[in-house]
Amino acid sequence: MKKTKQQNNLIIERKNRKSYEELMTDETIFALANGVLGTRGHFIEGYGMYDYPQTLVNGFYNTYPYKYEENYKQFPQVGQTIVNLPDASYIKIESDDEVIDLSHAEFIELDRNLDMNQGTTFRKATYLTKHGYEFQIVEEKIVPYDINMVVSRLKVKSNNYQGKIRLTSYLRMPLEKKAHPLDPRLPYATKDLDIEQIHADHDFAYLTARTTNTSLSARVCMTHDQPLDYKVEDDEVHASMIYDLKPNIDISLTKYQLYYTDLETDDFDQAMDEDLKNLRKFEDYVETETIIRKDFWSKSDIQVDDTRIEQALHFNIYQLNLSGGVQPSTSIAAKGITGEGYEGHYFWDTEIYLLPFFILTQPQKAKNLLMYRYQTLHHARLEAKNLGGTRGAKIPWRTINGKEASPYYPAGSAQIHINSDIAFAIKSYFEATNDLEFMTDYGAEILLETAIFLLDYGHFQNQSFHLNSVTGPDEYSAIVDNNYYTNRMAKAHFEYTYDFITEHKDSLNALLERIDITNNDLELMKKAAKQMTLLVNQESNVIKQDASFMSKKELDIEGIPKQNFPLLLNYHPLYIYKHQVLKQADTMIALVLLDEHDKTLYQNTFEYYLKRTTHDSSLSKCIYGIAAYHLGHHELGYKYFKAVTEFDLMDVKKFTRYGLHVANLGGSYLMLIYGLFGIRMNKILLINPAYQTEIKKAKTTILYQGVSIDLSLNQQKINIKTNAPLTVMIYGQKVIIDQEHEFEMISF
Amino acid sequence: MKKTKQQNNLIIERKNRKSYEELMTDETIFALANGVLGTRGHFIEGYGMYDYPQTLVNGFYNTYPYKYEENYKQFPQVGQTIVNLPDASYIKIESDDEVIDLSHAEFIELDRNLDMNQGTTFRKATYLTKHGYEFQIVEEKIVPYDINMVVSRLKVKSNNYQGKIRLTSYLRMPLEKKAHPLDPRLPYATKDLDIEQIHADHDFAYLTARTTNTSLSARVCMTHDQPLDYKVEDDEVHASMIYDLKPNIDISLTKYQLYYTDLETDDFDQAMDEDLKNLRKFEDYVETETIIRKDFWSKSDIQVDDTRIEQALHFNIYQLNLSGGVQPSTSIAAKGITGEGYEGHYFWDTEIYLLPFFILTQPQKAKNLLMYRYQTLHHARLEAKNLGGTRGAKIPWRTINGKEASPYYPAGSAQIHINSDIAFAIKSYFEATNDLEFMTDYGAEILLETAIFLLDYGHFQNQSFHLNSVTGPDEYSAIVDNNYYTNRMAKAHFEYTYDFITEHKDSLNALLERIDITNNDLELMKKAAKQMTLLVNQESNVIKQDASFMSKKELDIEGIPKQNFPLLLNYHPLYIYKHQVLKQADTMIALVLLDEHDKTLYQNTFEYYLKRTTHDSSLSKCIYGIAAYHLGHHELGYKYFKAVTEFDLMDVKKFTRYGLHVANLGGSYLMLIYGLFGIRMNKILLINPAYQTEIKKAKTTILYQGVSIDLSLNQQKINIKTNAPLTVMIYGQKVIIDQEHEFEMISF
Repeated sequence: MKKTKQQNNLIIERKNRKSYEELMTDETIFALANGVLGTRGHFIEGYGMYDYPQTLVNGFYNTYPYKYEENYKQFPQVGQTIVNLPDASYIKIESDDEVIDLSHAEFIELDRNLDMNQGTTFRKATYLTKHGYEFQIVEEKIVPYDINMVVSRLKVKSNNYQGKIRLTSYLRMPLEKKAHPLDPRLPYATKDLDIEQIHADHDFAYLTARTTNTSLSARVCMTHDQPLDYKVEDDEVHASMIYDLKPNIDISLTKYQLYYTDLETDDFDQAMDEDLKNLRKFEDYVETETIIRKDFWSKSDIQVDDTRIEQALHFNIYQLNLSGGVQPSTSIAAKGITGEGYEGHYFWDTEIYLLPFFILTQPQKAKNLLMYRYQTLHHARLEAKNLGGTRGAKIPWRTINGKEASPYYPAGSAQIHINSDIAFAIKSYFEATNDLEFMTDYGAEILLETAIFLLDYGHFQNQSFHLNSVTGPDEYSAIVDNNYYTNRMAKAHFEYTYDFITEHKDSLNALLERIDITNNDLELMKKAAKQMTLLVNQESNVIKQDASFMSKKELDIEGIPKQNFPLLLNYHPLYIYKHQVLKQADTMIALVLLDEHDKTLYQNTFEYYLKRTTHDSSLSKCIYGIAAYHLGHHELGYKYFKAVTEFDLMDVKKFTRYGLHVANLGGSYLMLIYGLFGIRMNKILLINPAYQTEIKKAKTTILYQGVSIDLSLNQQKINIKTNAPLTVMIYGQKVIIDQEHEFEMISF
Repeated sequence: MKKTKQQNNLIIERKNRKSYEELMTDETIFALANGVLGTRGHFIEGYGMYDYPQTLVNGFYNTYPYKYEENYKQFPQVGQTIVNLPDASYIKIESDDEVIDLSHAEFIELDRNLDMNQGTTFRKATYLTKHGYEFQIVEEKIVPYDINMVVSRLKVKSNNYQGKIRLTSYLRMPLEKKAHPLDPRLPYATKDLDIEQIHADHDFAYLTARTTNTSLSARVCMTHDQPLDYKVEDDEVHASMIYDLKPNIDISLTKYQLYYTDLETDDFDQAMDEDLKNLRKFEDYVETETIIRKDFWSKSDIQVDDTRIEQALHFNIYQLNLSGGVQPSTSIAAKGITGEGYEGHYFWDTEIYLLPFFILTQPQKAKNLLMYRYQTLHHARLEAKNLGGTRGAKIPWRTINGKEASPYYPAGSAQIHINSDIAFAIKSYFEATNDLEFMTDYGAEILLETAIFLLDYGHFQNQSFHLNSVTGPDEYSAIVDNNYYTNRMAKAHFEYTYDFITEHKDSLNALLERIDITNNDLELMKKAAKQMTLLVNQESNVIKQDASFMSKKELDIEGIPKQNFPLLLNYHPLYIYKHQVLKQADTMIALVLLDEHDKTLYQNTFEYYLKRTTHDSSLSKCIYGIAAYHLGHHELGYKYFKAVTEFDLMDVKKFTRYGLHVANLGGSYLMLIYGLFGIRMNKILLINPAYQTEIKKAKTTILYQGVSIDLSLNQQKINIKTNAPLTVMIYGQKVIIDQEHEFEMISF
């Protein structure tokens, strides 16, 4: 029996962050989600001015026509965007003659927290009105795990006002999105929803809207724990009530926002009726959530004696866990369900940066995420043809519905490495779970179709296999030849595909026949893997990022003014591309993921590229951090560990307001697992803890091949405990862990 | 005294080309222009259905906002487009109860010609109406050389109809442009003009309109040789008259369309009043034009014993001559003034493909064209900064107003070779004219500013100078390193700039100081030229188009279905870029222009790339043709000579309807001059006639360093006659031509 772990450091508190920037950022930090529905930490009473409340359902999207000044018919002709749902978050608070919000009153104090023990946010705002009244607004909020609902409990109190308070609870179409025409990372303003139905009953109201192009339907219903007066006014429902407020005595109102989309529900009426019947008190939801969160924390136990890192890691995996993976019909968006940045698109982030967390703690979610790729494989097959391919499947670079939605192909479709990224994730999942059924039913088909595309895309020349005109992970080089990461991952992809298919040939013959893959194809994969072009500068013994990188002009990164980062917003792509400068780790990801053995090459390559990396992408530092740990640069590793874990909490890039950097959330977990504990998911689990001195104590729990493993670090000692015997590889030595095993960190 | 040459073969005749495609193509073929104003060969009576008459003024343009799905602020944020002017071309022809045009009657016969002796088009269309009447419509048209006017003489006749004929002459806003969203070579439909003023007087009418964004004004005035009844109806003027038509007796009406834009005229009223006073009869204009054209033909004499080639060359230089070069404020658009294709933009086409004709026959026009680059140099300086440069000027890839307007930078801004193309043209102009004043006042500044940009863009590495992340002329490879053409031309550019500046240092010191160019800069140019990276595959002794081209996948061009050309419309750019396939000559242009001496290298390179070239661009075949002549492949040279000269006349690419391929017009002249006669414009004129047997006789006249030179080929003999002594280099031997010199073709 596993004993229950006691997880501390699960409350994120913030005080008096009152500026516009801070409020917007904290909307993200205090976002709540359940893996399907997400809602940001906007104020229930609004701000009165720059309100833009966002409640999103993962995968609920619209399309809109793309316009290219020079159009090519192979370019995606429509964009995809997650759709902000009708807004039921707002309750207007009015005293006799004042509105209580930021536009009409001043903040005296603002306290907020996210309690990860119970899945709630708490906010207490004290306002001073122009008439000199002080009001305290308390808002508690929860999004239950099993229903797409937001429950908010509002309390209003004053120490010096006595009189009427009117609360008007709104249900309305979403507010207008602001456009950011000069930042390619942010969406254009589009009108995505048409109202279809609006209805106010005596104790609830709902609004149904439909996306303009994808014709997806969403209903939002609101109700309250008290009888209010519901009225439809134009396209809005207002439900109001007047209270008598006495000094220092709360009035309280709980609002229930119920969300339905036809991604999850066929019959809105029936679902809504049922939900309305079963509503519970706020405390009841908290109670249930507390149990669920406890279970989560026990399976995802993390303890680090650096409390800031520990807290940040808690926050990160907490948010990561709620960002998706619940159903196989969606993946995880770059911003999770916490904002519309990157339009709610799914990238390779999921498989490379997020999946390890799910594989090692909740393999069912990992499987769901991989199933998304399987379910959209038909679109990937068409995209392969679109790119001139004759066979196989090309996973879209960014997508919601499975079709390619990247309008700027040099940093989009050209990133064919995504095929091997998915393959790598499938391999990791299988090694960690032995889920052979998944592999024979789905995994093998993805492996094969993505591999055959690469085989077709590339070519043999002089006994070498080449992949030309591709873009690697680093988007500050584009359309290059023989990008090391792409090629190295393709090599692993070919090898693994060959090995897996060969080993399970009997059960896969029908598949091979159906998708028309012959022995010759498999042999060609083997040959391509063997002859894969992997460029190394022999003189300096540094891997070449691609065929041209090292011959490019050097850029004095230190000399660039701070305000000119990220470079992509301030320099022409040609200027960026012609220089030896990286947005993010590239070659190093291959060395990290595939656990390169040549230490000198690893070290030289690390040094060479780190100097040239801007880390303009949030996918960068965690990789360098892991590599730093691996190489024994533990001071740097620790520095990056801190930076990566606190990336959103500290709003390092001043961009958290648009949503969490979910890849970085996962990346911080990778720093713990890949970096500190030196885990790699092979057939036999590798454990090569990094030699380091900064973190004295750390613990975590993972699941591998059905065995629960507690890993703990105490000074220079590592302790491994399992609930069943498991063979692992520690610093290159095979060890059968039977209950417990302790060993020393090895210094390189 | 020069004797007047007798030029034949100056009439282009076409009969019964009645299909929609043919009519649209012939609108281009029968376009008339005077270097400023151009009007297409649409029917004066219209077609009744798919009418889209176009009358254009070179450089009269509008802007419109560009929209990028992923925007970068360094991208051009507005597009530029030539603006179709208000339409004064139309005269509606009605009998008692029928309209006479293609939608209401059938063609019986259609005869058209362009008479290049007198600058007129003639069209005779015989219609059969539904009521069985036969009408003959004759339209003659002229655009006088010195006034922006279209004069049309309409005659209507019938052999079996007797009765009223109503002619209604229109003045109206331009008809709606059709959009072609999936062909990047064609413009979007935009609304470019707002009407400002419309006025009908008793014997004339005018309409003034203003471009929506650039606020340029245009006035179109119409009048006739007979008193008509002018009426404003809504936004149109209708001027009509009723005639009594008797069988076999003509009625006739001459319409004058006068065009004013504030590019040429400050005071529309004054200019118009004056022009209206000075109108002459149709025959009078023909008479004047005949004299002007005669002078033109005497200076641009071309005779070839292959009459098809001869006629096509006449057509080509005739149209080329009228496509621009009249004022220094404009250049020559990719389609001249014959259509809106490529939006009326100026490209490198002018300097590399068109300028030699003007240099060798009308140096003043050549100077005007170069002055356009000087007058827009301030924009080019800003564009250099926009590309991250710290110094110099970057000539825009496509532009009207001098600012970069290329929204797809991989086949746009990345073509930095345009800087050296302009430098090459300046050098050629100076060598051919000794116009030192131009050089010291303007040319040197362009040379320097464009050179210093390149020096700054590139870098030295291992004793080599590199230009990375560029696109060469061949747009089927993009963003490559060390494109041979770019580098080779930059080398020549640096060398020439260094030499010229050094030689004329004393008169240029003020300039150097003003634009802050030091001796050190000049020495660096010299060094960069010396150390320029010029890649050659040593094994095969073939020049590498760029660092990566030869390692790319081979493409079976023969195996691609015909309808899939041009590839750019049918394949994803990535597919095209990753293959060894060319849209157009690339390396070969450098070998041709700079007269590469290594014959083996030349031959090998020619063979290698020709096999891989689709000629999807009209800038391609003339270069290969010249190279073929140079290499002694005269059968191929001849084949290409025919194909190039007849490119538009035969509508080879089914694209002539959108305007003439002006670069190819110039290219056909290059085949004659560079190819057949082996001319190169050096300090000492090079004459290396190609050994060939297909063309027995050919003659032409050029002007070099103030000396008129008649070149004639007769069997294997070449005769050179000058009107003053001139030193030339014939097959490597310096010869002073004093009146006449004859020599034999040399076979290689």
